[in-house]
Amino acid sequence: MTAMLSATPITTTLGAAEQKVVGIVVQDALADMIDLSLIGKQAHWNVVGRHFRELHLQLDEVVDAARGFADSIAERGAALGISPDGRAATVAGARGLPEFPAGYVTDRKVVEAMVATLDIAVRRMRERVEATDSADPVTQDLLIGITAELEKMRWMFQAQTVDS
Amino acid sequence: MTAMLSATPITTTLGAAEQKVVGIVVQDALADMIDLSLIGKQAHWNVVGRHFRELHLQLDEVVDAARGFADSIAERGAALGISPDGRAATVAGARGLPEFPAGYVTDRKVVEAMVATLDIAVRRMRERVEATDSADPVTQDLLIGITAELEKMRWMFQAQTVDS
Amino acid sequence: MTAMLSATPITTTLGAAEQKVVGIVVQDALADMIDLSLIGKQAHWNVVGRHFRELHLQLDEVVDAARGFADSIAERGAALGISPDGRAATVAGARGLPEFPAGYVTDRKVVEAMVATLDIAVRRMRERVEATDSADPVTQDLLIGITAELEKMRWMFQAQTVDS
Amino acid sequence: MTAMLSATPITTTLGAAEQKVVGIVVQDALADMIDLSLIGKQAHWNVVGRHFRELHLQLDEVVDAARGFADSIAERGAALGISPDGRAATVAGARGLPEFPAGYVTDRKVVEAMVATLDIAVRRMRERVEATDSADPVTQDLLIGITAELEKMRWMFQAQTVDS
Amino acid sequence: MTAMLSATPITTTLGAAEQKVVGIVVQDALADMIDLSLIGKQAHWNVVGRHFRELHLQLDEVVDAARGFADSIAERGAALGISPDGRAATVAGARGLPEFPAGYVTDRKVVEAMVATLDIAVRRMRERVEATDSADPVTQDLLIGITAELEKMRWMFQAQTVDS
Amino acid sequence: MTAMLSATPITTTLGAAEQKVVGIVVQDALADMIDLSLIGKQAHWNVVGRHFRELHLQLDEVVDAARGFADSIAERGAALGISPDGRAATVAGARGLPEFPAGYVTDRKVVEAMVATLDIAVRRMRERVEATDSADPVTQDLLIGITAELEKMRWMFQAQTVDS
Amino acid sequence: MTAMLSATPITTTLGAAEQKVVGIVVQDALADMIDLSLIGKQAHWNVVGRHFRELHLQLDEVVDAARGFADSIAERGAALGISPDGRAATVAGARGLPEFPAGYVTDRKVVEAMVATLDIAVRRMRERVEATDSADPVTQDLLIGITAELEKMRWMFQAQTVDS
Amino acid sequence: MTAMLSATPITTTLGAAEQKVVGIVVQDALADMIDLSLIGKQAHWNVVGRHFRELHLQLDEVVDAARGFADSIAERGAALGISPDGRAATVAGARGLPEFPAGYVTDRKVVEAMVATLDIAVRRMRERVEATDSADPVTQDLLIGITAELEKMRWMFQAQTVDS
Amino acid sequence: MTAMLSATPITTTLGAAEQKVVGIVVQDALADMIDLSLIGKQAHWNVVGRHFRELHLQLDEVVDAARGFADSIAERGAALGISPDGRAATVAGARGLPEFPAGYVTDRKVVEAMVATLDIAVRRMRERVEATDSADPVTQDLLIGITAELEKMRWMFQAQTVDS
Amino acid sequence: MTAMLSATPITTTLGAAEQKVVGIVVQDALADMIDLSLIGKQAHWNVVGRHFRELHLQLDEVVDAARGFADSIAERGAALGISPDGRAATVAGARGLPEFPAGYVTDRKVVEAMVATLDIAVRRMRERVEATDSADPVTQDLLIGITAELEKMRWMFQAQTVDS
Amino acid sequence: MTAMLSATPITTTLGAAEQKVVGIVVQDALADMIDLSLIGKQAHWNVVGRHFRELHLQLDEVVDAARGFADSIAERGAALGISPDGRAATVAGARGLPEFPAGYVTDRKVVEAMVATLDIAVRRMRERVEATDSADPVTQDLLIGITAELEKMRWMFQAQTVDS
Amino acid sequence: MTAMLSATPITTTLGAAEQKVVGIVVQDALADMIDLSLIGKQAHWNVVGRHFRELHLQLDEVVDAARGFADSIAERGAALGISPDGRAATVAGARGLPEFPAGYVTDRKVVEAMVATLDIAVRRMRERVEATDSADPVTQDLLIGITAELEKMRWMFQAQTVDS
Repeated sequence: MTAMLSATPITTTLGAAEQKVVGIVVQDALADMIDLSLIGKQAHWNVVGRHFRELHLQLDEVVDAARGFADSIAERGAALGISPDGRAATVAGARGLPEFPAGYVTDRKVVEAMVATLDIAVRRMRERVEATDSADPVTQDLLIGITAELEKMRWMFQAQTVDS
Repeated sequence: MTAMLSATPITTTLGAAEQKVVGIVVQDALADMIDLSLIGKQAHWNVVGRHFRELHLQLDEVVDAARGFADSIAERGAALGISPDGRAATVAGARGLPEFPAGYVTDRKVVEAMVATLDIAVRRMRERVEATDSADPVTQDLLIGITAELEKMRWMFQAQTVDS
Repeated sequence: MTAMLSATPITTTLGAAEQKVVGIVVQDALADMIDLSLIGKQAHWNVVGRHFRELHLQLDEVVDAARGFADSIAERGAALGISPDGRAATVAGARGLPEFPAGYVTDRKVVEAMVATLDIAVRRMRERVEATDSADPVTQDLLIGITAELEKMRWMFQAQTVDS
Repeated sequence: MTAMLSATPITTTLGAAEQKVVGIVVQDALADMIDLSLIGKQAHWNVVGRHFRELHLQLDEVVDAARGFADSIAERGAALGISPDGRAATVAGARGLPEFPAGYVTDRKVVEAMVATLDIAVRRMRERVEATDSADPVTQDLLIGITAELEKMRWMFQAQTVDS
Repeated sequence: MTAMLSATPITTTLGAAEQKVVGIVVQDALADMIDLSLIGKQAHWNVVGRHFRELHLQLDEVVDAARGFADSIAERGAALGISPDGRAATVAGARGLPEFPAGYVTDRKVVEAMVATLDIAVRRMRERVEATDSADPVTQDLLIGITAELEKMRWMFQAQTVDS
Repeated sequence: MTAMLSATPITTTLGAAEQKVVGIVVQDALADMIDLSLIGKQAHWNVVGRHFRELHLQLDEVVDAARGFADSIAERGAALGISPDGRAATVAGARGLPEFPAGYVTDRKVVEAMVATLDIAVRRMRERVEATDSADPVTQDLLIGITAELEKMRWMFQAQTVDS
Repeated sequence: MTAMLSATPITTTLGAAEQKVVGIVVQDALADMIDLSLIGKQAHWNVVGRHFRELHLQLDEVVDAARGFADSIAERGAALGISPDGRAATVAGARGLPEFPAGYVTDRKVVEAMVATLDIAVRRMRERVEATDSADPVTQDLLIGITAELEKMRWMFQAQTVDS
Repeated sequence: MTAMLSATPITTTLGAAEQKVVGIVVQDALADMIDLSLIGKQAHWNVVGRHFRELHLQLDEVVDAARGFADSIAERGAALGISPDGRAATVAGARGLPEFPAGYVTDRKVVEAMVATLDIAVRRMRERVEATDSADPVTQDLLIGITAELEKMRWMFQAQTVDS
Repeated sequence: MTAMLSATPITTTLGAAEQKVVGIVVQDALADMIDLSLIGKQAHWNVVGRHFRELHLQLDEVVDAARGFADSIAERGAALGISPDGRAATVAGARGLPEFPAGYVTDRKVVEAMVATLDIAVRRMRERVEATDSADPVTQDLLIGITAELEKMRWMFQAQTVDS
Repeated sequence: MTAMLSATPITTTLGAAEQKVVGIVVQDALADMIDLSLIGKQAHWNVVGRHFRELHLQLDEVVDAARGFADSIAERGAALGISPDGRAATVAGARGLPEFPAGYVTDRKVVEAMVATLDIAVRRMRERVEATDSADPVTQDLLIGITAELEKMRWMFQAQTVDS
Repeated sequence: MTAMLSATPITTTLGAAEQKVVGIVVQDALADMIDLSLIGKQAHWNVVGRHFRELHLQLDEVVDAARGFADSIAERGAALGISPDGRAATVAGARGLPEFPAGYVTDRKVVEAMVATLDIAVRRMRERVEATDSADPVTQDLLIGITAELEKMRWMFQAQTVDS
Repeated sequence: MTAMLSATPITTTLGAAEQKVVGIVVQDALADMIDLSLIGKQAHWNVVGRHFRELHLQLDEVVDAARGFADSIAERGAALGISPDGRAATVAGARGLPEFPAGYVTDRKVVEAMVATLDIAVRRMRERVEATDSADPVTQDLLIGITAELEKMRWMFQAQTVDS
């Protein structure tokens, strides 16, 4: 018995070309969402400032959402014969979201970082929505729903950047 | 305003020496538990074989537990003025658990990998229990509780390695 | 008063051509989903073998899902003036899924039968997704969501066909 | 490996004669209850008229009850070494309940049809209660409980046939 | 500080032309759904007749649904930099649904009014589904889901217009 | 059949003079509470600023409370033969609360607007408590309870106007 | 030890005159509410007609409410040193509500009977509200709340007496 | 339309002789259970003594059980074409359980009264179990279950009569 | 910035004279209810005797109720611009309820102490009901509701003082 | 005071001969069910093998069921004046089920042991059903229900003995 | 295949000497806790006297706690490679708690027996806490938590031995 | 009978010296936790400022936690024969936490006060953890858990003292 199987044991219901497109989209989207969940937790633990409490809570909602998105995307891939890779080294090596600063971070800075992070996450996800348009409407439908949620989270942070 | 604060804004109730010991323990334990949660999900998505379904469920319980442990440890650190670092690059660079194989993995291999992973995780955590014995009984109490749970999970996988 | 109404009492918001396409799609999809729910229960009751217990549970999840799909499809039809027909004789006369064997069936055979059944169910549903693309995007959206769930169930059975 | 097992893998704790009686009773009762659940759904989807809404709800309660009865009966059979057969073709070929009309049906007609259907269902079930009196008191106890519920449902529809 | 901000503080991820189309669609859909929720409550309080009780309950379900739709649409707008306007005067000035009669209303009349109201609501929403097809598939997806629910509610009232 | 009934079908247990007083009170209170619920939602959607999140949540609690008050008042009226009118045009034409500004609004401004709105709402409701003192103690009891809640909400916003 | 205590073991916080007034009010109100709960159940079991189902449900709500009112009233009496008497013979001997007919009763007749019963119940309770005005505001407050609920129930039945 | 229907509108599935036996049994059992529920509440309100609190709670459990038994018995009758009569005068005129004393009653006396009451209730119910043995096994099954519960309640009170 | 604000930041909707009366009532009632909650816990922890268990539970219900009353009263005050003072020293300095004995206390003694404590609490609260009659009916309504609950608790302890 | 009461303080509603039969049946059935619960836990803790996880869960369901059966049987005895004896020495001295092996046990062996144990348990319980046929139908009804559940559990283990 | 495995299939993370100490402690503690659960049930079924009801409830809480402790201890052993033995004969042969009397037992006697039983149980468990201090802090932590609960239960029974 | 018992009725399982140490620790810790709960409520009611709402909520979480800690500590004492004293005068006379200011307090000041209060509370509790190290590990374990929670709460307030 070997550690790795020589060929995928899960067949696909897609054609070969569609399978290739969807394969790349799924792996990239998975890495982004795991990264987002780790960034959200990092901010959740390190935020300080007068707005500590509401950000502490809001960031955990981002984490819960990102974990759910990662799971849906990975299981969508697995169902199509695309083995998802969400290991620490893979995620760290494929990062496309902005780096979150080390140490304690003030609430104002956390909000700015989350807006920037979610803005990039939205733009990358929208490209994947386009890419799957002809390849697989079922996968596209999943990514559209995730994009809507990311845009809503982005708004909820950006609304806090206005000084009164 | 700068992105990072020059000095920790959270003071500690420990002495300087104890703080140093606890600081290393907390950061290392955090990295292990995040890594364990990612390994658990990787296995959850990629397991194949006759025992797919029960391992799929059991691995999610490992993930839930590991996420909870990571959160408790990180917030314990934050409460003591130790900024926790759970970002993808930090976790990937500090890994002490065995590497999980890529691609789809058979159920038998998954069980073996989880026994090995949890065995290492337990031994590393027990060293930390000893290290905090005189430094901080409150942190030690938290790590003892986590060790007990890790040992229980290790048993539950090892019990499956027996052929009948 | 007569038992049957001479003309449909529910008018439609679709054009005549679209209505015809959707009418066939809805009735066929309904029959498939009722059939799937009966197959799932049949397997739930008759499975034997070492994997009895987890299949017994997993099959009930298939049944719950199939019943929900049938209800959504039938009410979609009713809302469009298409009287749904889910009576025993109609379903038996219009079956397009593979026949499930009589009597007690081993777990291995059950898994194989469910993979085959769900594979056909997915392919037939994907044809209906295409057929409704121009006829009615609202109905199409419902079928896309069902297809994603069927593909996920198919994976979860196929993953169990690998020997370790 | 063959698709069907040559002999039943589940032994019985009944004598041969009792087993035969109970075998027939269980299979017939199962078919009736599945048929009742399909009839209930058919009516749930196709009822029209001033009383649409309350019948739409009441019929779903019939469906839930019938599905539960079918499951209890089938598992009772399976526990006694009697493989239950609830497949579409079997149910359609063994129907003993009145045929439900096709197409949309007025509420008044639905009530009449349900009274007739439940009346027959009760009488057939009472015969099975008698048939199992000496064969197996455990099965009889289950059927008595189901009969009580069917009689209650029959009353609740018949009460609606009175004009005021 | 002035009461109103001179320019929108929320930027958009859409192009200018798409933003304009989506802006009109969102505001109109919001007004319709708030109007529908007020109509539903008006009917809920003023219905009289033999069918009082079931309509009283059914209308509250319409109200709950309409409130949820309004909230989703408004937050979709806010997320795109489109300030939603749901104030009483705005809604009253932009009404496109049929006027609901004043005073107590008989049950029969309430059913007719709700069919007419939902019929118009569906047709107006379908136009918006078309309008957003190229402008923004994410917003379109939200409106498709709402349309399906409105059509289902319309059917449930229309089914009650048949005399038996 | 005409759309409106010529005379109220619900008789009253009050005398004629009391009925008249209560009729005015109920209709005015209803309009205020519906208006309050729409104002609350408007603010919920359009608030921006550092305090976005907690106001976003707090405003939804105002909306839930106002909807509940409106329902209790309207059903109290209906029970006394007073047909409640909560349609958009009626509410817009009878507004007594301050106008809420259009567009996005800063958090500080939202708090001020809510204090002013609730202050007026309390004063108007207190007048109605007095007006019903001799006319109908049952209606008065309902309005007293609502006043207490409005005063509590007013305090919770006013407490936020203090700069620290 | 004797079966009955010679003097009340529970002292009162009221004066003697107030105690006497409240004593009569509490005992009478208790008998009415128990009677109402028995009438509601009688109707719940014996109603027939096209509106069977919604009346069957609505009547159980009357029963639940009446039982709760009886309990609140009796415990209020017990707390003031007034021993409540809710035994069958006492209730039967002190009846002030209209007699409910024997046997199965049509839905139309049930509605009429409930309107008449609740109308009398309201009038009797309003007299008790007046009687306790100076005697005990705490007891009065309880009875006012009950009256409001009885009037609401009366309306909900009377609303069904209008033919459309 | 007359107040009472000339003949029962609900037909029966029993023979005439069985129907007569079951009719008497059902009506008598119903009266006993309503009486028991009123006795339980009377004791619940009037018990005094050191054991007040636990008896207060225990008696409410008796009341809940008795109400449930009454409802099951009455609906069983209604389902068989036997109109149940649970009105106050009928129950008071047909009482077979011991009379409960008036006024406040000591805890010791309450326990004795409940043992006596439940002892009679059990003996009367056991006679009905015998009477229905050949007449209707479905009704008998219901009464057996009730008897078991009554015997359990009787024990729980009798156990409290032992002095230590 | 100073620790205390020079003038109350919360304005009132009452007149000056009413405000003064209500201010005293609210502060005194608050102190009583906090004191009652501490007495209840003291008894909960120190009761001994054969009736330990039921008193242990019953006293916790008193504590929960008293805490809820204190919170309602304090927030009523805060809403009217009356800063509530519930600090330990204030409560200890303003005690009007009887002193509860130190050390373990027998169950009989606990019951007597609770009757005496609740009796004083009721009489003091009834005086406040009178005092607020003209000053503020909203505050009075709150105190009436609390009085009813205190009287009910007083009964439940007094009922236990009877020996059987 | 002595440790044991000289005569049973709980009287019976059965005749002397019936009481004797039921007494033996109840005590034996109680011992079997306690034994079954201990065997289930022993297996739950000591099972090893590939099927560890599902057996670990399934065995806990056996334990829960057996504990519930023991409780129902013991309380049935207590209610009839039969003092139940479930002490460790009594159970160990009266064992009639097969001995379960010591130490860790493979999953295959556990399944075989549970089939054997439940088979004996069913046969012994069926003898008791016969023994109580004329002695007490109420006790018999309880044992019949337990037998059905034991047979179902037996099937669920036996189904796992088939090799595929 | 043999019934028993020749060597333990679960390895340990402890040293050999520690493993031996922990092995004895775990097995003894397990036997005590199973014994305590059987004693608790025995008392639960056989208690009689005026305090029957509250002891009946309190004893079931002891049973639930003891079962949970047994499970935690046994699984702790299993996780360390110590096969736990909780079979009836083993428990009966290793009893260290006082024997509970046979037959019905008065409430006073039950309280005394439970104080004595829990007193011994606490003292035996405290010895085990000491024994594991250097052998395994994780097991010690588990036993400390159990000791605290046993001491609390002991107090709650001892408090009932005081006469008032 | 006297109000106070001459000697403690609850014996201890500790030695005399340990009992003395634990007695002081328990009483002091109890007073601190009751004081903390009153301080938390005082702040909950009197906080004003822009951050009113989130502090209002956060302070109630402190109150809930402190109440739970007080209860656990007091019951721990009671279980060891140490009568806990939580009366208002005792708590007020033994205060060791900083005094909280009177009147309304700004949010910034509340945060500072809570950091100072929790800091002292942690340091005092850590001394008690040390003091019980050899006296009673069970009590120590309880205090360690409480310390961890207090340190977490302290961090959550201190994090809000950073200006951004």
